Amino acid sequence: MTRDVVVAAAQMGPIAKADERGAVVDRLLALLREAAARGAGLVVFPELALTTFFPRWVIDDPEELDHYYESEMPGPDTKPLFDEALRLGIGFQLGYAELTSDGHRYNAAILVERDGRIVSTYRKVHVPGHEEPEDWRPFQHLERRYFEPGPEFAAHRAFGGIVASALCNDRRWPETYRVLGLQGVELVMIGYNTPIHYAPDPGQDHLAGFHNNLVMASGAYQNGTWVVGVAKGGEEEGVPSLAESQIIAPSGEVVARALTEGDEVIVAVCDLDRCNDYKTTVFDFARYRLPDRYHRITDQIGAELPPP
Amino acid sequence: MTRDVVVAAAQMGPIAKADERGAVVDRLLALLREAAARGAGLVVFPELALTTFFPRWVIDDPEELDHYYESEMPGPDTKPLFDEALRLGIGFQLGYAELTSDGHRYNAAILVERDGRIVSTYRKVHVPGHEEPEDWRPFQHLERRYFEPGPEFAAHRAFGGIVASALCNDRRWPETYRVLGLQGVELVMIGYNTPIHYAPDPGQDHLAGFHNNLVMASGAYQNGTWVVGVAKGGEEEGVPSLAESQIIAPSGEVVARALTEGDEVIVAVCDLDRCNDYKTTVFDFARYRLPDRYHRITDQIGAELPPP
Repeated sequence: MTRDVVVAAAQMGPIAKADERGAVVDRLLALLREAAARGAGLVVFPELALTTFFPRWVIDDPEELDHYYESEMPGPDTKPLFDEALRLGIGFQLGYAELTSDGHRYNAAILVERDGRIVSTYRKVHVPGHEEPEDWRPFQHLERRYFEPGPEFAAHRAFGGIVASALCNDRRWPETYRVLGLQGVELVMIGYNTPIHYAPDPGQDHLAGFHNNLVMASGAYQNGTWVVGVAKGGEEEGVPSLAESQIIAPSGEVVARALTEGDEVIVAVCDLDRCNDYKTTVFDFARYRLPDRYHRITDQIGAELPPP
Repeated sequence: MTRDVVVAAAQMGPIAKADERGAVVDRLLALLREAAARGAGLVVFPELALTTFFPRWVIDDPEELDHYYESEMPGPDTKPLFDEALRLGIGFQLGYAELTSDGHRYNAAILVERDGRIVSTYRKVHVPGHEEPEDWRPFQHLERRYFEPGPEFAAHRAFGGIVASALCNDRRWPETYRVLGLQGVELVMIGYNTPIHYAPDPGQDHLAGFHNNLVMASGAYQNGTWVVGVAKGGEEEGVPSLAESQIIAPSGEVVARALTEGDEVIVAVCDLDRCNDYKTTVFDFARYRLPDRYHRITDQIGAELPPP
């Protein structure tokens, strides 16, 4: 038996600070149409896919800051994307900055089914970076200034299987995949913006691509799930960002990978039934997990060292 | 600053069913001496390093079964290894089948310091395989018949840092590394016996080496720890087993790797201070972890699917 979902990862090149929403949505529409033309039933766009990665600046003017957030979804600028997706019968995940009606700010991703139904709005749990500007950095990473952490990782029934969203730094944490794996997830969709230069330890810079694959491939294998990682890559406002979008099978094998750093669609046939190859064997959780040996994972936040 | 520990992984080739303990210990002594000669202060031997991998057979005769277990450590056969290690001033980890004085049976590993002090006896938590013989398999994997799961993952101060043991299937589970990472572990030592043929899903066989590296490299990176994986490899009693012993840095990079499937020593200088490159930055647990979003990891054993 197969349960095929044709999934497209729609990588984007840079979005300049000066780019208008309308122009960005035009790029999204072009990617959407290409994905549909190549047979995809679901297209995954990057994190913060509507604007430049604004946490690289200190923005004190409230009006300027609010301009980067969406207060409705779809809104006037994004409605053409929703309309075209419905017309084409293709679902999508879109990352954006969310400003809720009661004033909360999240790094979010909306997931929309082929029939236009909104499946879920995911709010990024693992918000990286820092709260206050740090002058020694060549550019800032102020996500913790502009976003609060989301409440949960939740899997949903859609696209004929069990699917979930995550964003960027979430992909580095095995907890992300495991919490979703414990909901039977079969497809995890992850948008990211990853500067190649990591100011706190530049010794990691040359490993950015290796780490990107390592965490997604292990998360896939260890939970028997497809993983789709989608970059906003290339040099955006002077900051080179990792591209290397990829679609990874439950075996951990990369089955499709972007070759450019710009707008690029990659497509793979994801048979959700292949998840069972792992979920029912080596990673049969019900048979092999031993949660009482794992209590530190939820009892502790930081490390507690053995006594000297 | 550096905090160097020169670590040797002492891979072993097959141990035949007919091989006497004394002959096996002679091989361990040769590996120990080679490790010491190459400057190692710590040598890691495989899982079940004293006998053939006996869980591949149904053994009903209690006396025959008990023959595979150690009821004291060191015992008469293993004392020469302890004595020679003390003489050379080299510590070691040794995997063996343990029969306790009150009748419990564990897949265990003992860790001994350079001064002969016994640091810890680890009992394997994630016991794989099956309890009852299954005739359709070309060979059995009856670990769950012969071993009960150990009580915990514990890190210890030794070798100038914080170290821990794990065994074989433990390495596939991100919980293993995370529970140890939450104790500040800097070096995880893992012996393994891994048949290349995985009877429940032979489609995984050609990925055995890829998966072996994937899980250890991600565990290293995601916890900022050195990982040493040590095989009993080669064809043992007709069953080809994965070799590919390796020493992995906190970056996830392999810094040493075995090339043969037989008795082979590989050595790497492991600077434990390199762990801080990751523990204090991207994986600063105290700053970035959100355990209340992880509750499923300890609240659930198996998956609980979203409602239909």
